[in-house]
Amino acid sequence: MVQIPEGASKVDVLIIGAGPAGVMCATGLARAGINVRIIDKREDKVMAGQADGIQPRTIEVLQSYGLADPLLKHGNQMHMAAFYNPSPTGGIERTGRAADVTAPTARYPFEVTLHQGEIEKIFLDAMSEKGVQVDRAIVPTSLEVSSDPAILSDPQAYAVKVVLQHMSRPESQQEEVVYAKYVLGADGAHSWVRKTLGIAMEGENTDYVWGVVDTIPETDFPDIRNKSAIHSRNGSCMVIPREGDVVRLYIQVEQAAFVENGRIDKSKVTPQHLMEVASKSFQPFTISFPHEIMWWTLYVIGQRVAARYSLHERVFIAGDACHTHSPKAGQGMNASMNDTHNLSWKIAHVLRGWSDISLLKTYEFERRKYAQDLINFDKKFAALFSGKPRSDDNEDGVSHEQFLEAFQTFGGFTSGIGVHYEASALVDPTNQHLARHLRIGERLIPQVVVRAADARPENIQELIPADTRYKLLLFPGDISTPAQKEKLGDLAHALSAATSFRRRFTPPNAPVDAVFDIVTICTTPKEEVNFTDVPLALRSHWSKVWTDDEQLAGGVGGKVYETYGISTTEGAIVVVRPDGYVSAIAPLDGVKYLDQYFSGILHT
Amino acid sequence: MVQIPEGASKVDVLIIGAGPAGVMCATGLARAGINVRIIDKREDKVMAGQADGIQPRTIEVLQSYGLADPLLKHGNQMHMAAFYNPSPTGGIERTGRAADVTAPTARYPFEVTLHQGEIEKIFLDAMSEKGVQVDRAIVPTSLEVSSDPAILSDPQAYAVKVVLQHMSRPESQQEEVVYAKYVLGADGAHSWVRKTLGIAMEGENTDYVWGVVDTIPETDFPDIRNKSAIHSRNGSCMVIPREGDVVRLYIQVEQAAFVENGRIDKSKVTPQHLMEVASKSFQPFTISFPHEIMWWTLYVIGQRVAARYSLHERVFIAGDACHTHSPKAGQGMNASMNDTHNLSWKIAHVLRGWSDISLLKTYEFERRKYAQDLINFDKKFAALFSGKPRSDDNEDGVSHEQFLEAFQTFGGFTSGIGVHYEASALVDPTNQHLARHLRIGERLIPQVVVRAADARPENIQELIPADTRYKLLLFPGDISTPAQKEKLGDLAHALSAATSFRRRFTPPNAPVDAVFDIVTICTTPKEEVNFTDVPLALRSHWSKVWTDDEQLAGGVGGKVYETYGISTTEGAIVVVRPDGYVSAIAPLDGVKYLDQYFSGILHT
Repeated sequence: MVQIPEGASKVDVLIIGAGPAGVMCATGLARAGINVRIIDKREDKVMAGQADGIQPRTIEVLQSYGLADPLLKHGNQMHMAAFYNPSPTGGIERTGRAADVTAPTARYPFEVTLHQGEIEKIFLDAMSEKGVQVDRAIVPTSLEVSSDPAILSDPQAYAVKVVLQHMSRPESQQEEVVYAKYVLGADGAHSWVRKTLGIAMEGENTDYVWGVVDTIPETDFPDIRNKSAIHSRNGSCMVIPREGDVVRLYIQVEQAAFVENGRIDKSKVTPQHLMEVASKSFQPFTISFPHEIMWWTLYVIGQRVAARYSLHERVFIAGDACHTHSPKAGQGMNASMNDTHNLSWKIAHVLRGWSDISLLKTYEFERRKYAQDLINFDKKFAALFSGKPRSDDNEDGVSHEQFLEAFQTFGGFTSGIGVHYEASALVDPTNQHLARHLRIGERLIPQVVVRAADARPENIQELIPADTRYKLLLFPGDISTPAQKEKLGDLAHALSAATSFRRRFTPPNAPVDAVFDIVTICTTPKEEVNFTDVPLALRSHWSKVWTDDEQLAGGVGGKVYETYGISTTEGAIVVVRPDGYVSAIAPLDGVKYLDQYFSGILHT
Repeated sequence: MVQIPEGASKVDVLIIGAGPAGVMCATGLARAGINVRIIDKREDKVMAGQADGIQPRTIEVLQSYGLADPLLKHGNQMHMAAFYNPSPTGGIERTGRAADVTAPTARYPFEVTLHQGEIEKIFLDAMSEKGVQVDRAIVPTSLEVSSDPAILSDPQAYAVKVVLQHMSRPESQQEEVVYAKYVLGADGAHSWVRKTLGIAMEGENTDYVWGVVDTIPETDFPDIRNKSAIHSRNGSCMVIPREGDVVRLYIQVEQAAFVENGRIDKSKVTPQHLMEVASKSFQPFTISFPHEIMWWTLYVIGQRVAARYSLHERVFIAGDACHTHSPKAGQGMNASMNDTHNLSWKIAHVLRGWSDISLLKTYEFERRKYAQDLINFDKKFAALFSGKPRSDDNEDGVSHEQFLEAFQTFGGFTSGIGVHYEASALVDPTNQHLARHLRIGERLIPQVVVRAADARPENIQELIPADTRYKLLLFPGDISTPAQKEKLGDLAHALSAATSFRRRFTPPNAPVDAVFDIVTICTTPKEEVNFTDVPLALRSHWSKVWTDDEQLAGGVGGKVYETYGISTTEGAIVVVRPDGYVSAIAPLDGVKYLDQYFSGILHT
């Protein structure tokens, strides 16, 4: 057992860094009732600039925490992308427009831009409802993980010792020693945690240098409120509209002058210089910058991934600490938040004693592969975007068609919708054939369903909130027919047996739906369906029965079975992980299979 | 001029009563920057029971103030209605289900139930953002309106003297004298203001007595979360599901025992008695009431309308002070809020000096006619609902078909969508032919449009917020064609002339869009439209140009011209009043007509 000296602090999870990855993790853990502490070196929360675009999948994730509303309310929505290329008569002309998001199943088919401070505030408010605040002006100075196998294998042991320095206190009171069961390093691209663990970043920088400016321009450019990719003879530029009338411009600059050994000498360039470059690439449109520059920076594109994400499943790194890439693909903040969305429920399950500590291995397995895919995509995209446009005098340049094709091919990727987790103890593709189009390892495809008791239409994603529970979605077909009703009765019976996974893995004295939330989606028409036809053992509340029918107002709904590829007679049970990813599928009489599946990831 | 004695208070508008009508008015005036005070006799805001259903049109109105979100988030939605009638084998059986809302153009095709306290809180929060709080524990004791014609005709004169009594103060400090320019009596069915003005209620009570109980029942009745109309051999009953698991039951009771001279002796009945009656009408379904009774009452249905709504356009009455009717049609709170939604902007225009005091006459003209229609509808509906069901032994009873037909025929009415204001200085049906399906005098039909600058889809109702401005919706067709573009150019020219209504009625030094907010809805496809093609004189911001096209994600949009019956070549200018009602239509070259129309309602 770990001896904790007098005067030292204890915490179940210590999070270092209150950026998007850190606050997402803290929110998830605080909501799960986990004892969590989050520290940050900054005195205040970030007030402008930095990351911008929220992808469609990230909006879905935020909504799974009930947090998408403020984002949708205060953020700018990017629906359309516009492409400008050199015109034969000089200057640029619009080659075309296309949907910014090309993932057909996206629930929110647009990106949202909102400054990072506002996004973090959404989480700070949510954490604060659970009594968790960020401890600020604190830096870690040392971190040690126990090497004792007995301690490392005890999920409740305080295996990590961290020394903190409180910057704002008098010198003699600055040091604090903290013992934590688990530590997350969400401390950015220059991560102290990563360096302390000696984890290398693999990959390299490119030669591309870009400037970024946030301001309100005056212009007659008709696509100033669209995501516009401009390839001109005078360089490349990207327009990202933001909240209010603010626009972010990404401006390609000649690198030779500013870069030495991959490091930018920012003193050699000014935002005025960037805006002059931009003005030239907008010709024949006029653009001027009469308003305040809210934020600006210069950066060299680099694409690198951490060699490991964890030490002994006790200390983890997430977000920019694990991966750096081009901001133009709008991936940074999204990848970061999705890292810890993947991690937090797993830590909660281990701390609750529901799962073995080995569950935490799936974090690196799933998220590091994603980061590598991201870097590979980013290399291709950044090269295309930074390359010279094709023109009469440059036939090797990048053509509009090439660029558009890349833009659309990578739609699933840039939207975050196509993220696919490979097979593991958690992800079992065995019964993929029972729901042919609902890929095991991907997020549950949004669809509108109608509630049996009151005909209220709702997106099926609303039935799988990020509340740390596994969701069992039952698809029994038409429950007004004796055949399908009987199958549901048999299932109720099997799940009620003392030997069933549901009874075994739900802690004694806990509510029946503490670990497994069961929701039925039938096909009985809304005018006829009775929610009372679903056996009580499968229905913890009247709101747990839905039907795959069009909403009363028409237009949407009634396409779940078809979209998922589920037979209305054979049916299926779809298992959705707490983070919203489909992790297994069983036949309606597949309780035995589910016993086996859950025995691989849950404890009694 | 009115002499205001020392020690007396002054206010532009004094509102008596902080129920739904009062707080809606206070919110509208506070948002408009009007000096307003609202008093109420109650110490605290209402905490349960009372009014319940919010109609589709009222949700639209709330949304026009940006206030629908909390309602939609916290309220229960009623989408489906179910009808139960005597079954041949005894007890009741479901005869059918139908959409609760049968108004096809409703933007929110459902009713919301939420207790009155929560609804009032939405307004109290909105008022509070403008620094207005309810002054509580205050009753008025006298009210005098000047009889001096010079004072009455001066819109800025403090024509009304009201004496208030502060109940919670020591006796010697209770009295306060207030001089107000305008007074609103929103003080309920027993309105002190109405009685003080000597305004009679016209109409009568019926013989129908109903009990109401709010509780969480236990039941196997499959329509307990739908609006269910139950006609049984043991009496009638109505189910109104509410927030959470709460259900409101309306239960018909034998009146003889409780009523004397139209007044109910509530001591002779208990909620237990009501629940016993209900249980019998639910048979063969079982229903029990193991939980707390949150609220209950008994009432006699009465249908009455005030003979007048105003004295000299200085004192007004609104809400239950003007009309009482059956709660089951869900009209009370809706009619009340819509009364003052109609009134508040008119008072604001008069106080700002934009309009003559005579504009206020349209309040009674429009809202009293509506109340009369409401009472006529209510009589028919209450009789049908309270009548005995048709059965083998009662062939004169009300059949399911009769009831359903009435339910659907009155859909436009019960939803509030069909409210129609008759011709007046404000409502000019002259050019109805230019938008054949968009009825002048009715609310603007919701439709999805796509913003030209950024392809963001939005409901057209979002373009006409309740911000006290007139909206001019320009429908010029395809602005990428020279012919239509030229018409827009001519219009810009005409509106920019010093003699045009826009220049004449916009106060000097005020922003160009202070009185008239101009929005263009063209038909140019979203992939091609340039918002910069709309002349600057018609475009105060990039967000003011929209197109009638499908949204990028497909499914909705692109049907405005068709739905409104506007020709894409002829075009139209649709004038929407500040409260969201279409009040006039002009041809694209109809600035002269608009000069004339606005001269009838606005001042220079």
